[in-house]
Amino acid sequence: MPTDSASDAQRLPILLLNGPNLNTLGLRQPDIYGADTLADVVALAERTAADVGFGLRAAQTNHEGEMIDWIHQARGQVSGIVINPAGWTHTSVALADALVIPEVPIMEVHISNVHKREAFRHHSYVSPLAAGIIVGYGIRGYEFAIRRLAEILGG
Amino acid sequence: MPTDSASDAQRLPILLLNGPNLNTLGLRQPDIYGADTLADVVALAERTAADVGFGLRAAQTNHEGEMIDWIHQARGQVSGIVINPAGWTHTSVALADALVIPEVPIMEVHISNVHKREAFRHHSYVSPLAAGIIVGYGIRGYEFAIRRLAEILGG
Amino acid sequence: MPTDSASDAQRLPILLLNGPNLNTLGLRQPDIYGADTLADVVALAERTAADVGFGLRAAQTNHEGEMIDWIHQARGQVSGIVINPAGWTHTSVALADALVIPEVPIMEVHISNVHKREAFRHHSYVSPLAAGIIVGYGIRGYEFAIRRLAEILGG
Amino acid sequence: MPTDSASDAQRLPILLLNGPNLNTLGLRQPDIYGADTLADVVALAERTAADVGFGLRAAQTNHEGEMIDWIHQARGQVSGIVINPAGWTHTSVALADALVIPEVPIMEVHISNVHKREAFRHHSYVSPLAAGIIVGYGIRGYEFAIRRLAEILGG
Amino acid sequence: MPTDSASDAQRLPILLLNGPNLNTLGLRQPDIYGADTLADVVALAERTAADVGFGLRAAQTNHEGEMIDWIHQARGQVSGIVINPAGWTHTSVALADALVIPEVPIMEVHISNVHKREAFRHHSYVSPLAAGIIVGYGIRGYEFAIRRLAEILGG
Amino acid sequence: MPTDSASDAQRLPILLLNGPNLNTLGLRQPDIYGADTLADVVALAERTAADVGFGLRAAQTNHEGEMIDWIHQARGQVSGIVINPAGWTHTSVALADALVIPEVPIMEVHISNVHKREAFRHHSYVSPLAAGIIVGYGIRGYEFAIRRLAEILGG
Amino acid sequence: MPTDSASDAQRLPILLLNGPNLNTLGLRQPDIYGADTLADVVALAERTAADVGFGLRAAQTNHEGEMIDWIHQARGQVSGIVINPAGWTHTSVALADALVIPEVPIMEVHISNVHKREAFRHHSYVSPLAAGIIVGYGIRGYEFAIRRLAEILGG
Amino acid sequence: MPTDSASDAQRLPILLLNGPNLNTLGLRQPDIYGADTLADVVALAERTAADVGFGLRAAQTNHEGEMIDWIHQARGQVSGIVINPAGWTHTSVALADALVIPEVPIMEVHISNVHKREAFRHHSYVSPLAAGIIVGYGIRGYEFAIRRLAEILGG
Amino acid sequence: MPTDSASDAQRLPILLLNGPNLNTLGLRQPDIYGADTLADVVALAERTAADVGFGLRAAQTNHEGEMIDWIHQARGQVSGIVINPAGWTHTSVALADALVIPEVPIMEVHISNVHKREAFRHHSYVSPLAAGIIVGYGIRGYEFAIRRLAEILGG
Amino acid sequence: MPTDSASDAQRLPILLLNGPNLNTLGLRQPDIYGADTLADVVALAERTAADVGFGLRAAQTNHEGEMIDWIHQARGQVSGIVINPAGWTHTSVALADALVIPEVPIMEVHISNVHKREAFRHHSYVSPLAAGIIVGYGIRGYEFAIRRLAEILGG
Amino acid sequence: MPTDSASDAQRLPILLLNGPNLNTLGLRQPDIYGADTLADVVALAERTAADVGFGLRAAQTNHEGEMIDWIHQARGQVSGIVINPAGWTHTSVALADALVIPEVPIMEVHISNVHKREAFRHHSYVSPLAAGIIVGYGIRGYEFAIRRLAEILGG
Amino acid sequence: MPTDSASDAQRLPILLLNGPNLNTLGLRQPDIYGADTLADVVALAERTAADVGFGLRAAQTNHEGEMIDWIHQARGQVSGIVINPAGWTHTSVALADALVIPEVPIMEVHISNVHKREAFRHHSYVSPLAAGIIVGYGIRGYEFAIRRLAEILGG
Repeated sequence: MPTDSASDAQRLPILLLNGPNLNTLGLRQPDIYGADTLADVVALAERTAADVGFGLRAAQTNHEGEMIDWIHQARGQVSGIVINPAGWTHTSVALADALVIPEVPIMEVHISNVHKREAFRHHSYVSPLAAGIIVGYGIRGYEFAIRRLAEILGG
Repeated sequence: MPTDSASDAQRLPILLLNGPNLNTLGLRQPDIYGADTLADVVALAERTAADVGFGLRAAQTNHEGEMIDWIHQARGQVSGIVINPAGWTHTSVALADALVIPEVPIMEVHISNVHKREAFRHHSYVSPLAAGIIVGYGIRGYEFAIRRLAEILGG
Repeated sequence: MPTDSASDAQRLPILLLNGPNLNTLGLRQPDIYGADTLADVVALAERTAADVGFGLRAAQTNHEGEMIDWIHQARGQVSGIVINPAGWTHTSVALADALVIPEVPIMEVHISNVHKREAFRHHSYVSPLAAGIIVGYGIRGYEFAIRRLAEILGG
Repeated sequence: MPTDSASDAQRLPILLLNGPNLNTLGLRQPDIYGADTLADVVALAERTAADVGFGLRAAQTNHEGEMIDWIHQARGQVSGIVINPAGWTHTSVALADALVIPEVPIMEVHISNVHKREAFRHHSYVSPLAAGIIVGYGIRGYEFAIRRLAEILGG
Repeated sequence: MPTDSASDAQRLPILLLNGPNLNTLGLRQPDIYGADTLADVVALAERTAADVGFGLRAAQTNHEGEMIDWIHQARGQVSGIVINPAGWTHTSVALADALVIPEVPIMEVHISNVHKREAFRHHSYVSPLAAGIIVGYGIRGYEFAIRRLAEILGG
Repeated sequence: MPTDSASDAQRLPILLLNGPNLNTLGLRQPDIYGADTLADVVALAERTAADVGFGLRAAQTNHEGEMIDWIHQARGQVSGIVINPAGWTHTSVALADALVIPEVPIMEVHISNVHKREAFRHHSYVSPLAAGIIVGYGIRGYEFAIRRLAEILGG
Repeated sequence: MPTDSASDAQRLPILLLNGPNLNTLGLRQPDIYGADTLADVVALAERTAADVGFGLRAAQTNHEGEMIDWIHQARGQVSGIVINPAGWTHTSVALADALVIPEVPIMEVHISNVHKREAFRHHSYVSPLAAGIIVGYGIRGYEFAIRRLAEILGG
Repeated sequence: MPTDSASDAQRLPILLLNGPNLNTLGLRQPDIYGADTLADVVALAERTAADVGFGLRAAQTNHEGEMIDWIHQARGQVSGIVINPAGWTHTSVALADALVIPEVPIMEVHISNVHKREAFRHHSYVSPLAAGIIVGYGIRGYEFAIRRLAEILGG
Repeated sequence: MPTDSASDAQRLPILLLNGPNLNTLGLRQPDIYGADTLADVVALAERTAADVGFGLRAAQTNHEGEMIDWIHQARGQVSGIVINPAGWTHTSVALADALVIPEVPIMEVHISNVHKREAFRHHSYVSPLAAGIIVGYGIRGYEFAIRRLAEILGG
Repeated sequence: MPTDSASDAQRLPILLLNGPNLNTLGLRQPDIYGADTLADVVALAERTAADVGFGLRAAQTNHEGEMIDWIHQARGQVSGIVINPAGWTHTSVALADALVIPEVPIMEVHISNVHKREAFRHHSYVSPLAAGIIVGYGIRGYEFAIRRLAEILGG
Repeated sequence: MPTDSASDAQRLPILLLNGPNLNTLGLRQPDIYGADTLADVVALAERTAADVGFGLRAAQTNHEGEMIDWIHQARGQVSGIVINPAGWTHTSVALADALVIPEVPIMEVHISNVHKREAFRHHSYVSPLAAGIIVGYGIRGYEFAIRRLAEILGG
Repeated sequence: MPTDSASDAQRLPILLLNGPNLNTLGLRQPDIYGADTLADVVALAERTAADVGFGLRAAQTNHEGEMIDWIHQARGQVSGIVINPAGWTHTSVALADALVIPEVPIMEVHISNVHKREAFRHHSYVSPLAAGIIVGYGIRGYEFAIRRLAEILGG
């Protein structure tokens, strides 16, 4: 389970989840995904969360089951979820089913513009469940997703 | 690997498998899935199996690979399999391929009526392999699946 | 109109409906449908209904209009309906429209596993209306449908 | 043609375009689009643009041709475009063709989550041309689109 | 904006909208659309509206934006809308989105039987929003649409 | 065969046909179909037919074959047909084939707006044969269909 | 049930079945179906059957259920079936299911060339079950179907 | 070019064309196509043609271009064409286009029941042009095609 | 309304219409559309029309309604229409409906080869109405369209 | 291999290829293809080629393989290809693959407007490879194709 | 018919068939197909066949009919077939039908990776008949196909 | 992480990955997959790799996440990857995305001929990324994949 980077006394933290292959961010296809690394993403997310008064728990995994487990454990422990489901976006009903369990707002983030890529990347099982979707903003999408989430949460 | 809840001297036990998110049963969307928990499911299954003269091994996982491993290990160790594949029903060829390996009857169970939900839930990779399918019977579906399985096995 | 096989003083009976070609059960394609006859189905259903405290009215027809008429007449006269719509499952909007009229729970039964057969047998107009669906359980499906129906009805 | 709300001496302004029916924002279906009005959107956009050092030109029209004319006139006059194409998103090839003419970054904004609505709203002719897409963020989506646009422009 | 042909003191008038190419009615393809002209349509509509106690505002345009503008302006000014969207029926999400804004009943009219023509004419973006649809009744369809609208409005 | 409610010396009567489940009108799903009964429909149709100088024969059946027989017998006996094919609208080629046999105008009526319901209700085998189609007008649709039919017949 | 026109002492007769609207043959759309009547068809079939040494039972119905009943009764009573399923060809799974019950060869006949008509007439639920299919031969198709059937039966 | 097997002084002969792989008839997949050879087909066709008073020209080729050439040369030289297009049935627009050039009736023959085989064999480019189609009659289909052709030609 | 560039005493002029974004020709994506401007197109068209003895009226608009208005006004005023519908080609039923109103030959022109671009550009609502279509000829396509139009008109 | 009709000392000739059934031009379906013959096409093409300073090699075949062979031999021997692929347009990947081998511009010509005909004629394997496509211009299309080809070649 | 390059006394040779345009290998699109020529392919195949103890007959044609003829003649004359069907892979049912006639193992080879190219190249009529398929191995695919074929043949 | 079976001093080893259920090779459905076990596969791969001068790392897992982790770790550690993705071939975008990360050639292997099985097995997310694909060669496919990989790597 991911560990808290920073905890706010009054509020439950935000959970930041990154899906398969995002651990290689900055390495894989920089023309598509940019030069920022996952560490950069987490650092940006932590700064943003702190700025809006929330702690942040961040985790990445290439194991669908692990991510589902984390989402279950998040129930009652987090205020909201920011998730980049990566390749599972288009294929995982199980992940989408998990995301409704914590009953918190879900923010979907895609770093690159999936609509410029293969047709199978244009469909998302997560989008119908999401409070908001941001696509192609690079890692800045994570910041805006957190800011919007805080706003939804009354932050 | 799941542990046996009860073992019958003469016969191999029945394997009860529950897929992703079913560990949250009774918590998640009670309007769809009801108030019974996974523990209730297992207890009901154990009572039913005992009633028809079989032991029961029960397990749940959110990890596709773990479920596939368990199915492999079941070969020669179980009489039949009762499975609720949950979200993998609609997406996992790997799980369906695994289910043919033990060469025992497969009973597919869905607690809610998937035909009232999204169109992607109307297709199952498991159904063509199943000896029987039961949908929308709540947790009672597990009982009937075990009773039918015992009948198929000559129980 | 079907005649009552057995009547319970306190409760409205269950209506068992079998659709086209099921009068030939046990004769037609025994490799698919088994050796049990329609009389066996009715006898099993009667025993089961009695066991759960309900009377049973059973009827079979190859005439869509006759079945629709029966369903209309069942309004206010039966507690629930167990139906094997056979070939009409996949083609009859009129039958599906009729089934909502009695405003009682509908249990859908298919003796063989339709998911192992032609693709046009994978869609059912009845399933979205059903309280439960059981497929491939042989004639045992009728028993379980009645047991589940009784449970839904508080039997 | 839209008039400049504020002009920056050093840089070309950002063009904010809102498509059909967005003049009724705050009036139409508040459960979907919220209570904010188009004036609120423009005010927010102006504040944001000013904050990142850009002027803003804002305009709304229900006339496809008018919007195309404005986009043409924007060539060489604006740094980038933030557009909510509303109903044209899904139907207007002419608008999408116009958007490539200014040769500036395009930011696509949808106030509500179109992925929770009819299937025909899931496809966008604009998305493949966009530098970023933001969906379901309410009017906050305009702010983030401008901030990201400024970042892309080196603002 | 269309001008009132007749005004009723107690009630808001009915808005009659005709879409693209209907100004050429009676000229274009008389074998499909008949010999009646748009003036005949308006005269018939005025007589009918008067007969059921409503004033009528009538307008035709080939400009989608103009029609959307009129629909917006109709909010709070009309009791209901009778519309023949002509070619926009099959293509304009923007028009359909506009039609929900006045929050009055919408009556859809097609003079010819679109179901005898090309397949693309069989789908309507307006129909799911309409209180009633009349197809192939010639210009009589406008009369009946107004009569039904009056009935819905308690006229 | 339906019996004449009223006969006009000079002209052949109009045949009013109602398809499956319409005998339960006013009972079934009043939120969709309203509170009027089939008797109300027939009474309204008779009054309307008389008003336009035609007799009316009315009949309803849940038996496709019976309706086809009636349509055959109508050849040379009726001036036109007003039909609500209900569930057969979407499924019965045999009924549509029958309707061309009398060689009289066919008016298709649907009480509720089928375009707000399931996608399979959006297609009609009858519409390409119809002189006019009216959808969602409640039982008033029958009146208007008869009035239009009389007009077509020179009534 | 159809009555035998002629009976052969040694062999079971051939069953000739005609589906919906074929009772109007020679009347309906002579440009498509020709001027021959159903009586002509039966007479030709009887002569042909006699010529190849078989009796013939002929029947036509517009009631799907009646045809299914007849097919059931034919089991063990007829050598083979020649059927023109007319409109049910494309829609009736129930009829196709019935046709396998007698376990005799099935010959499918269509008088007109269905491949020149609407696309929905190009699919047949009967063809995969048929020993032979003949299309567009006018009523001569019945003769050839009987001749071929006799050949298959060793006639 | 095929040579005449027999010539009738008064009439133009019938052209019998067999497409790709039919030269191997009797050799290839006897379970599908039977044991008769192409020579048997031609002999049967010659006898039949003679019986109905026509000469016969027969030819087989595996070369699409050669068959098209023959069809062109047939213009004005033959009374009608009996063709088994084999694999080209489903793929050759060029062949179908050629068949309209002689302006004589076309009879399409398939020896086996293509509707029991792969889905791509269910579509024919030739059928919409054919005066009649016979499927699954074995080589007897050629005889009946010639007999029907003679009838069409007034033979 | 477009003004005549040159008028021929004996004949009605040709109407040249260019659709959305074509005013930017030579500016937009020169790799796709080339360096010629709209003024070059009109000049070439005028020279060609004069060469074949016709006057030319030329107009371009980004407003669908304006183009429809012009087409209506062209009735009885022009001999034929040469149109490049640009993005409306693939989306505008209203425009296609307008083009049949003048009852003159329609020539469709596309400067670039739309078949090398996105799939949605491969369908045209105008092509079924056109007397000829020319694609990918650069601005030369306009010349050839006019030459062919003159030939059709007996020029 | 086609023979040169006229040879230009300085330049490689243009290759004119006509596909299946075009040898019957002027004979086949004159309502679709007109009264001009293939000889007329070749004569027109020769005159046009000469006019723009090119020789012409013309050939027609009904044999796909022959056309492919000719295209191979054209490599290095011709400046460009004008081709009417006729029925192969829609079906021959092999022909399309051949056309890229000479590495010269390809001009696609269709005499009739294929977009008014069956849907399978709306797709072309050749169009994505073509420098230009001309449809429905009658035989004039060949002239314009050659003129445009010469222009592309700098003629 | 291809001539044997080398003959083995004990065994029937392997038949190597190359389809349309493969005679230009090494010339056509070297970025897709590489620099090796057909002669290189044949030489490699001969060496490989000799190495595994088989003779080789090699042939290439652009004529579908010629290849079908060769395949027929191969019956009883060859041990197995290695085929690169090139463009016919995706379009020729006739070729696929021919390949089952020799009743020997079929090895399918594609030099380039067809799955990186147009969608129509992803389907093969030959693959369901093949003992093995090798794609994208360059000319090495032929060697491996022969080695595998020899292994299947017990070589 | 898989352990090296053999290491070559000069070169990075080849990574051999087998996906879900392949650990049961030789046990599961021997009629489809043959009698060879995974150990046989690895032994063959090791021998082959050694023969072409490479070490081999081999691993199998039923856990998608584990395989993705291994692929990430392979970056910079292996020369190329030979992978049999088994059931994930058709469903895992995440796996396909992982395979581009090491930036080495990917060889796709399927033991059985997936094109003879269900339609969902005909699509591969891996094939567009692969340097070569081999299907239906049994375990020999691994050998040839390694040999080809070595060739690509200059081995």
